[in-house]
Amino acid sequence: MNFTLNVLGTASALPTTERHPSAQVLDVRGRLFMIDCGEGAQMQMRKAGLSFLKIEHICLSHIHGDHIFGLFGLLSTMAMLGRSSQLNIYAPRNFRPVLDFFLATFGEGILFEINYVPLSMDAPELVYENRTTELLAFPLNHRVETFGFIIREKRPQFNVHKEAIARYGLTLAEIGALKRGEDVVREDMVIPHSEAAYLPYEPRSYAYCSDTAPFPELADWIRGVSLLYHESTFPDSMAEMAARTYHSTTLQAAQIAREAGVGRLLVGHYSSRFPDVGFFLEEIRTIFPDADLAHDMDVVEIPF
Amino acid sequence: MNFTLNVLGTASALPTTERHPSAQVLDVRGRLFMIDCGEGAQMQMRKAGLSFLKIEHICLSHIHGDHIFGLFGLLSTMAMLGRSSQLNIYAPRNFRPVLDFFLATFGEGILFEINYVPLSMDAPELVYENRTTELLAFPLNHRVETFGFIIREKRPQFNVHKEAIARYGLTLAEIGALKRGEDVVREDMVIPHSEAAYLPYEPRSYAYCSDTAPFPELADWIRGVSLLYHESTFPDSMAEMAARTYHSTTLQAAQIAREAGVGRLLVGHYSSRFPDVGFFLEEIRTIFPDADLAHDMDVVEIPF
Repeated sequence: MNFTLNVLGTASALPTTERHPSAQVLDVRGRLFMIDCGEGAQMQMRKAGLSFLKIEHICLSHIHGDHIFGLFGLLSTMAMLGRSSQLNIYAPRNFRPVLDFFLATFGEGILFEINYVPLSMDAPELVYENRTTELLAFPLNHRVETFGFIIREKRPQFNVHKEAIARYGLTLAEIGALKRGEDVVREDMVIPHSEAAYLPYEPRSYAYCSDTAPFPELADWIRGVSLLYHESTFPDSMAEMAARTYHSTTLQAAQIAREAGVGRLLVGHYSSRFPDVGFFLEEIRTIFPDADLAHDMDVVEIPF
Repeated sequence: MNFTLNVLGTASALPTTERHPSAQVLDVRGRLFMIDCGEGAQMQMRKAGLSFLKIEHICLSHIHGDHIFGLFGLLSTMAMLGRSSQLNIYAPRNFRPVLDFFLATFGEGILFEINYVPLSMDAPELVYENRTTELLAFPLNHRVETFGFIIREKRPQFNVHKEAIARYGLTLAEIGALKRGEDVVREDMVIPHSEAAYLPYEPRSYAYCSDTAPFPELADWIRGVSLLYHESTFPDSMAEMAARTYHSTTLQAAQIAREAGVGRLLVGHYSSRFPDVGFFLEEIRTIFPDADLAHDMDVVEIPF
C-alpha cells in the first residue's frame, strides 16, 4: 500500500548538471501518476526503476518547455514498448495543439488511446477517481494558465471493534452502518460510531504546486495534505524577481505550508543561479520546520 | 587547433540507463558543430562542459524523435542564456513544420536568428564553409529522408622549405606559387612543388552516418575520412531485422569503413536489446581492426 513520491527533476527553466527539469512520479499502490514531464524524464524513470507501462495518468501543470519537453520522448518510448492501455493526460487547454502536433508528426506508432482531459476550473475539482484514490486539479497563479494537483487516498471503510460486536450483539446491518461511519441507533440506545469503530489508517494525500506565485485561496485548497511539494525558485532576497516572474520564494513556500497546516513540505524548482541551495532550507525552516529540499532522484515515502 | 568529437548519446530509439539518444558535438578549433540532438542533449553538453553559445551549426540527420527531441530544450536554453548570434540548422525538408511549431508555441524568447538550410541533395554537397572548414551533406538510406554529414578541414597553405628558398633564391612570386601548391617554372628549370614545399598538416575529416542501411555509393562519398562514425544498431545475427528497419549491422559498418579506407571507425546507435555490446566490437574487428565502440560522454581527439 505504498504512497511514494519519486522526484525526477528539481530544476527551474535552466537545467544544471545536478538538476533535471521538473518531473515527478507518485506511486499510489503500484499505479503511477506522473506530474510534469521535463526533458529527460524517461531516462530518469529508467534510472529510478519505474515502469513506463504502469503510468496511468500524466498531469501537466502548464505548457512551458521545462515542464513538458520530456513528453514526446516518453510517449514514443511507451509506443515502442507496445503499450496498449489507455493513458490519461490532464493539462491546460493550450496543450491541445501540442498534442495534435505530436500525434501528427511523431504519432505513427502510437496504438494506445490518449485520453486528454483539458483543465479549466476556478477551484479544486475532481478530475479522476478510482476505488481508492482521487485526483484533483486547481488553478495556480503563474504567467500562463497553470494548475496544481492533489492526489489523495479516499477515506477507507471503518473497522468495527470486535469487543463492540460481542458487547452489543451487533447485527450485520448495524455493523454495516458503523463501517460506513454512521452511529447505531436502537430504540433504547445509541451506540456512537466513535466508540465502536475506527479508521484502519488515515488517508494520505499529496499536493503539487509549481509554478506559482502565492495567492490567498491556495492554503485552503491544499489544507492538511500529508506532503506538499511547493516551488521555491528564489530565496527571500529575490522576492521582487519572484513576484515579477510569478514564482515563489523560500519564505512564501513555507508560509503556505504553515497556513495550510500540511504534514511536511518539500521544495524544488530552484533557480540555476544557486548550485547550492542549502541556505534555502535554513530560510524555510524559520517558518516551517518540517521542511526538506527535494533533490533529483529522491524517493519520499509518505507513511500511514 | 583541436578537432574533437564529443559523443553525447549512443542509444537507438530506446534510451537505456547508460545510453542517451543520438547527439554529438564536433569541436573544430573552438567552433562547435552539433550533429543530431536527441533528448537530454543539453544536459549531456553541460556535463561535458560544452558551451551552448559556441554552437554555430546543428546538423539533423532525420526527423525521428531519438535524433531531435533534445532540440526544443536546447534552443530554449540558448534563448534564456541570451544568445544573439545566428544559429544554422541543416535538416531534411520535413523539419520545416517542426521548427514552425516550435517557434509558434515556445519561441517567444528566441531573439537570435535561426538560419534553416533544408537538405535535398542526391550526392555530397557543400552546405557551409568558412576559411578553414567545410560541411558537406549527403543522402543516407533510411525509412525516412535522412542525411549524413562530413566535416573536414580545408587543405592548408603549403609551407616552403627554408633551404629551398636559399638554394634557389626563390622570389616572392615563386614562394606564393609553391604555397598554393604549384611548381615553380623558370625558363631553364622546374622546381617541383613536392621538393620545395610541404603541408604543415594533413587536413582532418569526420563523417557521420546514422541512421542508414548500406548502399553502394556510400564508401565513395566518405572515402579516406580520418574518423567515421557509423551506426551499428544490430549484431551480424540480426541482419534481416537491420534490412527491414533500414539499419546496419556490425559487419556492414566495418565493411563500409574498409571499402572507404577510413582512418578509424567508431560505432554507436546500439539496439537497447544489448546492454553489453562488447561482442559487437569483436565482430567489427574481424573486418576492420581500427574500430571502437562509442560510449556516452566519450571524447575522441582526431589528431594531426
